[in-house]
Amino acid sequence: MSRPVVDFFFELASTYSYPAAMRIGALADAAGVGVRWRPFLLGPVLKAQGWDDSPFNLQPAKGRYMWRDLERLCARLDLPFRRPDPFPQPSLMAARLAHLGLAEGWGERFCRAVYAAQFGDGRQIGDERVLGDLLQGLGVAPAPALARARTDDIKARLRAETEEAQSAGVFGAPSFVCADGELFWGHDRMAEALAWAVRPRP
Amino acid sequence: MSRPVVDFFFELASTYSYPAAMRIGALADAAGVGVRWRPFLLGPVLKAQGWDDSPFNLQPAKGRYMWRDLERLCARLDLPFRRPDPFPQPSLMAARLAHLGLAEGWGERFCRAVYAAQFGDGRQIGDERVLGDLLQGLGVAPAPALARARTDDIKARLRAETEEAQSAGVFGAPSFVCADGELFWGHDRMAEALAWAVRPRP
Repeated sequence: MSRPVVDFFFELASTYSYPAAMRIGALADAAGVGVRWRPFLLGPVLKAQGWDDSPFNLQPAKGRYMWRDLERLCARLDLPFRRPDPFPQPSLMAARLAHLGLAEGWGERFCRAVYAAQFGDGRQIGDERVLGDLLQGLGVAPAPALARARTDDIKARLRAETEEAQSAGVFGAPSFVCADGELFWGHDRMAEALAWAVRPRP
Repeated sequence: MSRPVVDFFFELASTYSYPAAMRIGALADAAGVGVRWRPFLLGPVLKAQGWDDSPFNLQPAKGRYMWRDLERLCARLDLPFRRPDPFPQPSLMAARLAHLGLAEGWGERFCRAVYAAQFGDGRQIGDERVLGDLLQGLGVAPAPALARARTDDIKARLRAETEEAQSAGVFGAPSFVCADGELFWGHDRMAEALAWAVRPRP
């Protein structure tokens, strides 16, 4: 019998998607769950809710808290942390490359490299030279990959992923959707989503 | 040496304040932490952030998710759950009574009774007859208590509590503030707040 699968919807500039992306592989393996990595763009999803910037910028008290909470969380999880400046980072090209990489077999490693560069090292993930460095580190030739990431096919995939996230009820990142449609939001619910995916059915 | 104390800021109509209020006593005792119960009004705090209704009403996708998440959470914690209608319930008089009760020694029991009535039994906590029933159940004579809750002193205490919550950085409920000012938001961070309060200092 094949393992149950959880859809992992994430945004490459999202703060709590960082610890989720760094940890989900090991946790899902331990739980006996497969993970479908589904990078989408949070911007259009927030815009549909009436917001034209991150809620963490629009609500300063919540934003201040989030940075402190993320710092504490990363310390607890032993993940390096630097606050990216500016926030959120432009993530469009990184998201296109992620879709290309997922089709070509290097997508998950690329996503983790983007998060580590952004939230561990404070690098600019909107800068194609930075993305090129990351690709190089994975053994992927940068210029041709960047060109392939600009094709209509990849653009359409990213748009479709964002629409599918919304159809599944996703309103923030990271989110986890089980095969039965059950939705879990936030790094705080990752373990619960994996447990849900393998729970005994009546 | 006296136990460390955590300030527990909560709103009587707030969804995730319900499991927090029902559980914090036992968890804090086990952790060796004292709890200062601080009921405040979330409405003015949300208004200061530009919102004139609960974000769970203003953002329908988030609201739908919250109700499902709360239902799952209550099932996990073995707490009864019924969705209050309307939401949020008018909580002004309940909050005034809570302050009166905290001064008179029956406040914590009253708050738990309000949550159980609202989220367990689906009762209307804005209705003074319902509040009277709850007072009666605690052995407090309803009419005089309601009269004492309407004094300027109690009104001023509730206003001050709401202002102090904001000064401490609170933007949502429940929130937990340790003696060193460290802020934790949400039922999900309650255990972490209690652990922070007793952690070894350098």
